[in-house]
Amino acid sequence: PAGALPARPAAEPGGDLAGRPCRHPLADRRTNARLAHCEDSVKGRFEAIAPTLKAISALQHLDDFAGRAQALARQQLGYELPQGILDDAWVAGLDLKALYAHCAFSALKASAAQFADDLKNQLEQLQDARNFFLDCGFHAIDISPCADGRLKGLSRYILRLPLTSFSWRKAYAGALFDVETDVRHWVSTELRRFREGVPTTAAAGSRYLKVAVYHTSSSNPCHEGCAAHGSNEHKAIEAALERLVQFRQAIENAFCCGASTDILLIGVDTDTDAIKVHVPDARGELSAHRYVEAMALYRETARLSADSARLAVYEAISRASAASGWGTGQGEPHEGMRRLIAHLLINNFSQIEYVAELYGERYPDIGHAERFISVGDGFEEVQMRNVAYYAHLHTLEEGAADMDVGIKIFKGLNVKHGLPIPVAIHYRYDARVPGSRERAAAKARRVRDAIRARYPELAAQGFLACHLSVQDQPTGSPIETVEA
Amino acid sequence: PAGALPARPAAEPGGDLAGRPCRHPLADRRTNARLAHCEDSVKGRFEAIAPTLKAISALQHLDDFAGRAQALARQQLGYELPQGILDDAWVAGLDLKALYAHCAFSALKASAAQFADDLKNQLEQLQDARNFFLDCGFHAIDISPCADGRLKGLSRYILRLPLTSFSWRKAYAGALFDVETDVRHWVSTELRRFREGVPTTAAAGSRYLKVAVYHTSSSNPCHEGCAAHGSNEHKAIEAALERLVQFRQAIENAFCCGASTDILLIGVDTDTDAIKVHVPDARGELSAHRYVEAMALYRETARLSADSARLAVYEAISRASAASGWGTGQGEPHEGMRRLIAHLLINNFSQIEYVAELYGERYPDIGHAERFISVGDGFEEVQMRNVAYYAHLHTLEEGAADMDVGIKIFKGLNVKHGLPIPVAIHYRYDARVPGSRERAAAKARRVRDAIRARYPELAAQGFLACHLSVQDQPTGSPIETVEA
Ligand SMILES: [Zn+2]
Ligand SMILES: [Zn+2]
Ligand SMILES: [Zn+2]
Ligand SMILES: [Zn+2]
Repeated sequence: PAGALPARPAAEPGGDLAGRPCRHPLADRRTNARLAHCEDSVKGRFEAIAPTLKAISALQHLDDFAGRAQALARQQLGYELPQGILDDAWVAGLDLKALYAHCAFSALKASAAQFADDLKNQLEQLQDARNFFLDCGFHAIDISPCADGRLKGLSRYILRLPLTSFSWRKAYAGALFDVETDVRHWVSTELRRFREGVPTTAAAGSRYLKVAVYHTSSSNPCHEGCAAHGSNEHKAIEAALERLVQFRQAIENAFCCGASTDILLIGVDTDTDAIKVHVPDARGELSAHRYVEAMALYRETARLSADSARLAVYEAISRASAASGWGTGQGEPHEGMRRLIAHLLINNFSQIEYVAELYGERYPDIGHAERFISVGDGFEEVQMRNVAYYAHLHTLEEGAADMDVGIKIFKGLNVKHGLPIPVAIHYRYDARVPGSRERAAAKARRVRDAIRARYPELAAQGFLACHLSVQDQPTGSPIETVEA
Repeated sequence: PAGALPARPAAEPGGDLAGRPCRHPLADRRTNARLAHCEDSVKGRFEAIAPTLKAISALQHLDDFAGRAQALARQQLGYELPQGILDDAWVAGLDLKALYAHCAFSALKASAAQFADDLKNQLEQLQDARNFFLDCGFHAIDISPCADGRLKGLSRYILRLPLTSFSWRKAYAGALFDVETDVRHWVSTELRRFREGVPTTAAAGSRYLKVAVYHTSSSNPCHEGCAAHGSNEHKAIEAALERLVQFRQAIENAFCCGASTDILLIGVDTDTDAIKVHVPDARGELSAHRYVEAMALYRETARLSADSARLAVYEAISRASAASGWGTGQGEPHEGMRRLIAHLLINNFSQIEYVAELYGERYPDIGHAERFISVGDGFEEVQMRNVAYYAHLHTLEEGAADMDVGIKIFKGLNVKHGLPIPVAIHYRYDARVPGSRERAAAKARRVRDAIRARYPELAAQGFLACHLSVQDQPTGSPIETVEA
């Protein structure tokens, strides 16, 4: 399967070019090949849209235009175009904006279905992941990355953590997650343990882990870092640390002793997907200055045997814990935390190698190159870098700042070229709660109306293409279109 | 203390005038007197504003205007006016809108402080109420009335239920409470039982009671009923019933068996404050057609001894349970529920008598006569009829319809007379959650900005007077002004 990797410029990870691709003993080349295939087909679906529509547009004045156009669409895109738009082309010209929007949402739905399928084939891995988390002493892993599109592949690509029933991800601009929402989440997780003993009983002494993920750009740190923090890494770290501490404090204050939660902070270099894991000390405290860098560790260990490399990872974690100076902490974290950190670093080695093999020294799109704006709860299953700009919001009133940034990005990416901005408004519902689906659909409509009202010129000129959908809670549930 | 009741037209409750006020053996005349004093002083504070400002306005061109105005304000209102406004009056005339807003919010804050004080004197009653609920088998009582200002006195006046740590109230237009929010509330209540055994242990078999309260107007049912349901009582009942069933179903579906919740539906005639309690059957099911009416029962039992009257109340509940036809149910509710219903009916006798004695056959203000718009979480402690129009909202985007109704009402009540609309934006925070106070204050500012943007003409002409405040969770916490 390694042979399935497309031939692109390969590089020694981290830019230390030696002419031949590097092979780390702990990198998972089989999974890399599968992920490359997945990335190719998802991005390919979006990339095929513009050339295909351009070719179709050129056929406009030929005989049997609609028939030829559909044939081309089937062949190049794999689906048909709305017949009505083709039939009406002779009157006022072909409505290319409408076709583009249709294709973008078709690509999105096909990608989501592919990811959902893929998830079904990973049931064994899922069980392994669950057992691994439990072995490390965690009964819940709640990850909040920044909403930046370049982190959209966090679980699947960068950290290689499968979505399980007790690990999940919710993105916020600048990783500034909502403490109140997360406390509620902690509460319902705990209740399930007490009532049902799932996934561990209340007596088990396992922990709830809250992870925040910030990001930087090693090649252009002052411009391509986290927009929510003005591309200032220091600010991004401090802000995420503050939220993590607030979260832990909130639970300790509200639910007396024994409310044991762990916190973890991870940084991602969006140029190379290499991570930096901040190592908690024995009391669970974090520091901006105490961490392990996966890229340096990758290079140090790339030529060792698998066992030696694994040992070196654990040693690096111990070294970080023993740091003096600003990063000084009080001892090492508990054993389960050390195992989890080692696991994340080793997983990331595969991704470092993936990026180096497919793209060379760094991603070619170090900036924005998103294909659509994802509004609402987001398509949890579609996990790939730079596919979507993501604005997690339940009302535009609260999320207007995030949305404005997204619209600005897409004015440059799409509107400048005459293409509409695909806005996929998506909410999850809970089929076990009566009326929940209807309320989620109504919310999607309300948010759509608010978006149209906020950008009236774009709406009037047909540059805002909104697609509304809802989805039941369980991971991999079908995406149900509510209203085109 | 009965002598403290002001002399106003007294009437036999229900309009059956017999020339002399009725005395029901179960009515609590001592509490009635205290509540009358409370109502007088709260409403008096608002009623004094306009005449006092009128008198002050007439002094504008006299010597030492500011000194005279302050003296009058102290004497008539009990507080001083902002000195700057008085000092500047000689330039562009007295800014009466600003003074009016200042006075309205001062009256509100004084009323809130009075209610909070009053709560501190009821600690014994609180403990009694808690014990009573527990005896009836309830560990939580969650009441959702309609947001209509005429139901604002529901707990304190109409039902005479003190606010305790496990009974609370959250109003929604049309009593259409948010199922998701309430399920979350149920979850955290259950977790506290499991973790801390508060107020009952998980093994105790006690229940969570969810109550919805709709309303009608007996003298003008088609115009002064619930605006959210077009003054259609049938619709109001069906909608509330549907939500109650959804709530119970949601919990049963999501948390397997044993998740025992009770539901209850109550109607209020806002002309007389008389209630109608829908009696659940043995399976906990409700019917629009199976209920006991407090007003009829009051009249039937007014001339009996206390013991016979109490017995008659229980008999009425049994009679309702045995109803045939549309209201047929399967047997009687459990004993705790019967006791609770009897308690509510008997409590309501006091309020029926209160209204009859103070106002005669019905309230003089059967329609809207609110003093301010309450936006956000509302002033839980200020519980009095027609003091506030209440819009429970966390974003104007979600609550715009409620707010539009409020603004329309106040255009008639205030703007028509040149007075501004006092809008009190108020959010609760949790001091145990770090950053919670700052986030609540930021939310208040965001909602204020959204309100100004939605009603730009009113804002530009100074007709929107917004007051921002936050308050810690525990009942009776001080109201903290955020920004004038
Ligand atoms: Zn960011
Ligand atoms: Zn969400
Ligand atoms: Zn109503
Ligand atoms: Zn609220």
